[in-house]
Amino acid sequence: MRPSGRTASQIRPISFTRSFTAHAEGSVLVEFGNTKVLCTASVEEGVPRFMKGQGKGWITAEYGMLPRATHTRNDREAARGKQSGRTMEIQRLIGRALRAAVDLSLLGENTITFDCDVIQADGGTRTAAISGACVALCDALSHLRAKGTIKTNPLKYMVAAVSVGIYKGEAVADLEYTEDSAADTDMNVVMTETGKLIEIQGTAEAAPFSFEEMQDMMALAKIAIREIIDEQKRVLA
Amino acid sequence: MRPSGRTASQIRPISFTRSFTAHAEGSVLVEFGNTKVLCTASVEEGVPRFMKGQGKGWITAEYGMLPRATHTRNDREAARGKQSGRTMEIQRLIGRALRAAVDLSLLGENTITFDCDVIQADGGTRTAAISGACVALCDALSHLRAKGTIKTNPLKYMVAAVSVGIYKGEAVADLEYTEDSAADTDMNVVMTETGKLIEIQGTAEAAPFSFEEMQDMMALAKIAIREIIDEQKRVLA
Amino acid sequence: MRPSGRTASQIRPISFTRSFTAHAEGSVLVEFGNTKVLCTASVEEGVPRFMKGQGKGWITAEYGMLPRATHTRNDREAARGKQSGRTMEIQRLIGRALRAAVDLSLLGENTITFDCDVIQADGGTRTAAISGACVALCDALSHLRAKGTIKTNPLKYMVAAVSVGIYKGEAVADLEYTEDSAADTDMNVVMTETGKLIEIQGTAEAAPFSFEEMQDMMALAKIAIREIIDEQKRVLA
Amino acid sequence: MRPSGRTASQIRPISFTRSFTAHAEGSVLVEFGNTKVLCTASVEEGVPRFMKGQGKGWITAEYGMLPRATHTRNDREAARGKQSGRTMEIQRLIGRALRAAVDLSLLGENTITFDCDVIQADGGTRTAAISGACVALCDALSHLRAKGTIKTNPLKYMVAAVSVGIYKGEAVADLEYTEDSAADTDMNVVMTETGKLIEIQGTAEAAPFSFEEMQDMMALAKIAIREIIDEQKRVLA
Amino acid sequence: MRPSGRTASQIRPISFTRSFTAHAEGSVLVEFGNTKVLCTASVEEGVPRFMKGQGKGWITAEYGMLPRATHTRNDREAARGKQSGRTMEIQRLIGRALRAAVDLSLLGENTITFDCDVIQADGGTRTAAISGACVALCDALSHLRAKGTIKTNPLKYMVAAVSVGIYKGEAVADLEYTEDSAADTDMNVVMTETGKLIEIQGTAEAAPFSFEEMQDMMALAKIAIREIIDEQKRVLA
Amino acid sequence: MRPSGRTASQIRPISFTRSFTAHAEGSVLVEFGNTKVLCTASVEEGVPRFMKGQGKGWITAEYGMLPRATHTRNDREAARGKQSGRTMEIQRLIGRALRAAVDLSLLGENTITFDCDVIQADGGTRTAAISGACVALCDALSHLRAKGTIKTNPLKYMVAAVSVGIYKGEAVADLEYTEDSAADTDMNVVMTETGKLIEIQGTAEAAPFSFEEMQDMMALAKIAIREIIDEQKRVLA
Repeated sequence: MRPSGRTASQIRPISFTRSFTAHAEGSVLVEFGNTKVLCTASVEEGVPRFMKGQGKGWITAEYGMLPRATHTRNDREAARGKQSGRTMEIQRLIGRALRAAVDLSLLGENTITFDCDVIQADGGTRTAAISGACVALCDALSHLRAKGTIKTNPLKYMVAAVSVGIYKGEAVADLEYTEDSAADTDMNVVMTETGKLIEIQGTAEAAPFSFEEMQDMMALAKIAIREIIDEQKRVLA
Repeated sequence: MRPSGRTASQIRPISFTRSFTAHAEGSVLVEFGNTKVLCTASVEEGVPRFMKGQGKGWITAEYGMLPRATHTRNDREAARGKQSGRTMEIQRLIGRALRAAVDLSLLGENTITFDCDVIQADGGTRTAAISGACVALCDALSHLRAKGTIKTNPLKYMVAAVSVGIYKGEAVADLEYTEDSAADTDMNVVMTETGKLIEIQGTAEAAPFSFEEMQDMMALAKIAIREIIDEQKRVLA
Repeated sequence: MRPSGRTASQIRPISFTRSFTAHAEGSVLVEFGNTKVLCTASVEEGVPRFMKGQGKGWITAEYGMLPRATHTRNDREAARGKQSGRTMEIQRLIGRALRAAVDLSLLGENTITFDCDVIQADGGTRTAAISGACVALCDALSHLRAKGTIKTNPLKYMVAAVSVGIYKGEAVADLEYTEDSAADTDMNVVMTETGKLIEIQGTAEAAPFSFEEMQDMMALAKIAIREIIDEQKRVLA
Repeated sequence: MRPSGRTASQIRPISFTRSFTAHAEGSVLVEFGNTKVLCTASVEEGVPRFMKGQGKGWITAEYGMLPRATHTRNDREAARGKQSGRTMEIQRLIGRALRAAVDLSLLGENTITFDCDVIQADGGTRTAAISGACVALCDALSHLRAKGTIKTNPLKYMVAAVSVGIYKGEAVADLEYTEDSAADTDMNVVMTETGKLIEIQGTAEAAPFSFEEMQDMMALAKIAIREIIDEQKRVLA
Repeated sequence: MRPSGRTASQIRPISFTRSFTAHAEGSVLVEFGNTKVLCTASVEEGVPRFMKGQGKGWITAEYGMLPRATHTRNDREAARGKQSGRTMEIQRLIGRALRAAVDLSLLGENTITFDCDVIQADGGTRTAAISGACVALCDALSHLRAKGTIKTNPLKYMVAAVSVGIYKGEAVADLEYTEDSAADTDMNVVMTETGKLIEIQGTAEAAPFSFEEMQDMMALAKIAIREIIDEQKRVLA
Repeated sequence: MRPSGRTASQIRPISFTRSFTAHAEGSVLVEFGNTKVLCTASVEEGVPRFMKGQGKGWITAEYGMLPRATHTRNDREAARGKQSGRTMEIQRLIGRALRAAVDLSLLGENTITFDCDVIQADGGTRTAAISGACVALCDALSHLRAKGTIKTNPLKYMVAAVSVGIYKGEAVADLEYTEDSAADTDMNVVMTETGKLIEIQGTAEAAPFSFEEMQDMMALAKIAIREIIDEQKRVLA
C-alpha cells in the first residue's frame, strides 16, 4: 500500500560508509535508501566566546543541500547570500541532538563541528544526517582519545533519528519523498540507545492528528531507531 | 514547589486585549503573566507568486522581539542585518499553526500576514503569540466578511498553544522564564478546539525524557489549551 | 481649520508612562495623540572601541517601527536584511539629541542604548521618540546613581522635540499624519529646557519656504517644546 | 581669525568644470577649495515602480566617497557590503534638493540619477555635491531638449547649498575640515535662486545654539548661496 | 623528484563516474587523484533576462567546496553570507569554459546550470571541475535530444583543463596540493579537443616566470589535456 | 584597420599624474587614452591577522568603477550591497601584481592598500590600474623612507600591464572599448621591468585561439609593457 511496497514499520536499507573523505576526523556517508548525506566531524581547539573558561567543550552543526540534490534545482544558499529558515531549523536540530549525546565537560575546551551536506535527497535528510553524524562523532572521539587529547570517552549514548508520519490514514516509518509530500502528518523523532527521547517535532501538514495517531507514530519511531542504532554499532564495531 | 507557587497544571493569568492598535485588521495584545506579545493581522489583496492562480489565500507570520524585552538587551535584528535561527524557527511555527486553522480555499486570493512582536518576555513567547494571533485572525476574518470580500467564514477551528516541560522531575504547564531556564525538557504544543494536535516540538534540554514523561506533558497541555481557547472565545463573544 | 480642529499652536494631548516594561533601566511609553512610541534605555558597562580609554561614557539610539504601526503594512526591516535610509537618519538624530543632553565625562565608561520602537504611528514619531527617550534617560541615570555607579548627575538639561510645518499656508505645531502628508514644509526641532537649539531639520516638501515662514515655525516650536518639557518634569517629579 | 584667514562671510574659491567625464548626460567636477566632488547626471527612460503611470519623471541621487578622499583611509562601502548611515542621509538630502528644483510633470516618465562621488574631501562635501549636481542637471535637461524628449524646460529654479557654522563663538560660512571639526554648530542650507529655502539641517556639535546664532548663520548662508548661484549661472552661460 | 614520484608530464589517475546522483540531467563525479568534484548539469527552460528574445540558450556555473573538503575546515559560505573572491573567480572561469564549448544558438532558449561541488580537495579543483562538467554537459545534451527539445547537437568540441606549474625550477603537470603550495608559478589551461586554447591563467606565486617557462608549461598542458579528453571520450562512448 | 587608426602594436597615449589628490601617500591618475583610473596607495601600520608576528608587510588592492564611468550607468556596488565577481577578480589581480613587485620582508609590519577607482572607462581599466598603482607604490615607498619607517627600498622591480587581443584575426595591443567588445580573444599581461611574467590571463571570447596567436599577443605585450615602464620611470625621475 506504500508506494515503495514497504510495510508500515519497515525502514529503507540503511548504510554508513566511514572514512568517506580523507581529511575530517570523522567522515561518514549515510544512506537511507536514496537519501545520501555526507556527515563530517571537524575537531578544532578552543570554544566559542560564550563558552570560554568553563573547561567544557562545544558541539555545533551546519546543514546544506547541494543545489541539484533534489528533483528540480534549488538556489545555492551561498550565492543567494543567506541560509533559508528551513536550513537554520535543521542545523539547530542536528546540533542539539549531538550535544545531547555528549558529556561536554569531558571534552575539554574543544569544538566539534558537524557538516551535513545532502548529496541526494529522497525524504528524511535531517534524520539521516543525525544518524550519520553520530557515527562520525564516534570516529572523531576515537581520534581525540588516540591523540591523548581526552582520556575518558565523553559519549553518553548513541543517538539516532527517523521520520514517521500518517500516510493515507496510517502510521508509517521512514517516509521517502513521494510519501512525505502526500502525508497528513510528519514527525521527526530523535532517541538515545537507552530508548529515551531527545527531540520530537510533529507537524500536521494536511489535517490535525489525534493523540492516538501520535502514539502510533511514536511506537514505530522506537522500533526504527532501535534498528538504526544496531546498524550504527555494527559498522563501528 | 514551582517558583511561582503555581500548581503543576496551573497556567498564568491570561488576557487578550483586542484592538490594541488602530490600523491593523486584527490587533491583539496577548498576556501570559508577564509575557506580552502584540499580534497584528494585516490583510492584503493578492498572494505570493508560488500561490498565484489557484484561487486560494495565503497566511504567513513574522516574529520579533524588541531589543529590551528581556533581562539583558539583545542586538536588534534589523541592525545586525539578519534574523536569527531562533526567530526563523518561531515565525515558521506560527505561520504553520495559523494556516492549519484556516480553509485557504475560502479565503480567496488574499494574504493575511501576522506580526508577533514581543514587548516583554517571561517565557512562552511563541505559544502566547500563536494564541494571540488566533484572536487577531478572527477579527481580520470578521473584517473581511463585513467588507464582503469573503462570504463564508474560512476558520476551521480555533487554535491555541502552550509550553509544557519537566521541571525538577515533574511535568508542569506554562513555564515562566525562571522555570524554563532550569527545565530538563521543554515542549511546545499547538492544538485545535476539537482537541487535535497541530504541532508538537519537544526538546531535551538537560536530560532525555521518557515516553511516560511525554504523556504527562501532553496531558497538561491538553487541559491548558482548553482553558486558553475558552478565554479566546470569551473575549471574542 | 486643521483637520484635528486644533489651533495653530496647539499640540496634541501628551503623556509619558514610566516603567511601561519591566526589564529596562528606563522604559517609557510616550504618546503624542495617536502616535505611541516605546522608549527604553539600556545601561551596559563599557563603551564602543572608538571611545575606549577616555574615561567617558557613550549614548546611542536605535529606531524601529512595528510593521503594522501604519495604515498599510511595511516590510519588516529585520526580514529585509537592512534598515532603510529613513530609519538610519532618525536613529542618528535621536542619538545626537540625547548625547547633547548629557555630560559624557560624568557617565564613566558606560553605554546607554535607547531603543525607540513605534507601536502606532500618526505623525511625529521621531520627535515623540526624542521626548520620551529623555524621560527614560532620567530614569536610567537615577538607577545608576542609586546603584552608586555614578555620583554626580550627568544630565545637562532636559531635551524635547516637536515637529512644526506649513499647512495650507500657515505655520502649525505638532502635525498629525493627515496634516503632515499634506504639508508644504516639515520641520523637526530639538531644544533644551534652557530654550536653546540642539537640532533643526526643515524640508520643503511641496514648495520652498521663506525666512519669515521659518521664523513662524521656530516660534511655534519654542512654545510647544516648553509645554512638552513641563510635562516631562511633571511626570518625573 | 579663521585658520584659512578668510573673513566670516568669505567662501572658498569655487569652480564648476562641465563635461569632466565623457559618457554622462551631465558631468561636473565641483570644487569648493580643496573639496572636489564629481557629479554626474544619468538619464534613463522609465521611472521606478511606485511612480509608474503618472506621466511624471523621477530624480534620485547616490553619494560616495573614494576610500582615500580623506586624511585616513575609510573602508570601501562596496566591500563592507553596506552604505553607512551618513552616506544614506547625504544622498537622501541631495535627492530631495534636486527634486525640489524640477517640475517632475514636465520631465515625462524619465529618471535622472545623480552620482556624487567625492574625489577629495575638505569639509562641505554634501553642499558642494548639491551645487555641482544642479549644474549637471542643467546639462542633462539641455541634452533632453536637444534630443526632443522634452519640450519645456522643467527647471523651476537653480538650487545651491552651503555649510555655515559657529566657530569660536562666531558665525562663519563654508567651513573647511579644520574649522568643521572644531565648530560648535554645523548647519547645511539649501536655497533657490529666488532666495527661498529648500532645506536646513542644523546640529549642535559641542554646545546648543541660540535663535540669534541661527539667524546669523542663515544670513551668511543667504549671501554665500547667492554667490554660488552666480557662479553656476556664469559657467552655464 | 616530485613528492608523488610522478614524472614531470605524468598526470594523476583520472576517472569520470557518470550518473553519480539521480536527479540531474548530467551528474559526474570527476576524480583527479584525490581531488573529487561532483559536477551536475541542470537544464531549465528559459534564459536570464539579459538573454531573452534572442532565441539562444545560456550556460552558467556555480562552484562550492564542502567545508571539510580540505585539511582544515573552512567557513561555510552560505553561513558567512557571501561567496569568496576565489569562489567567484573559479565559477566565472568554469562558466566561460563551458559556454565556449557550445553553440548557444542551437540550444534554444534553455539554460544549463553547472554545479561543481568539491567533495575532497587535493589541488586542481577548478580544472577537474571543468573537465568533469564537460562530461555532464554531454549527458545533459543527450537528454535534451532524447526529449526532442533540440535536434542538432550544439556541442562544438569537448573541452578539458589542467593545471601546470613550475615546481623546484621545472615545469610539471597536474599539481597536487603539496606541489601546488610550494610551486613558483601556477597556470590553469583550458583547451578544446582540436588543440586550441579557451583560457590560460598563469600566476607567479613566488617568482616571476620567463617566456621559456611559459612555453614549457604550455607544452605539458597540451599533452595532459589530450589525455584527459581521451578519457572523457572513452567514458562517454 | 583598427577603429582608432592605430597600428597593431601601437598603444594609446599614456600619462601618469602624480599627487592627483592630496591625502594619500601615493596618488596617481593614470590615463590610457580615454581610460582614466585614480590609483591611491594608503599606508597603515600593522598587518592583517593572518600575517601577524612574521615581521613582514602586506599589500592589498580594491577596485571600483564610478557608476557612470561607462556608456550606460551601472548600479553602485555599495548600494547593491555586494561587489560583483568581475570586481573581485580584478582587485585580486591588482593585489597579486603589486605584491609580486615588493619584498614584503623589507616592508616591516605595514600594510599598503591600493584603491583603484575608474573615473572614465574605455577598455583596459585593470591593466591601467596596475600600471598606475605601481607609480603610486613608488611614491608611498619614498614616503616611508623619508619618514624613516623603512631603510631599504623594498621594490624588487617596476611592474606594468597591458591588454592584448585578437581583433579581426590579428593580434593588437592595448584594446579600447570598441575593439575589446568585438575581439575574439582578450589577454591581460603583467610583466616586470626585467621582462619576466607576473600574470597572464587569456580568454577566448568568440573563438578559441591557437598557440601561434598566443605567441603573437605575448610579443606585442612585451613591447607595450616596455614602453609603459619607460613612461613610469620618466614620470618618477
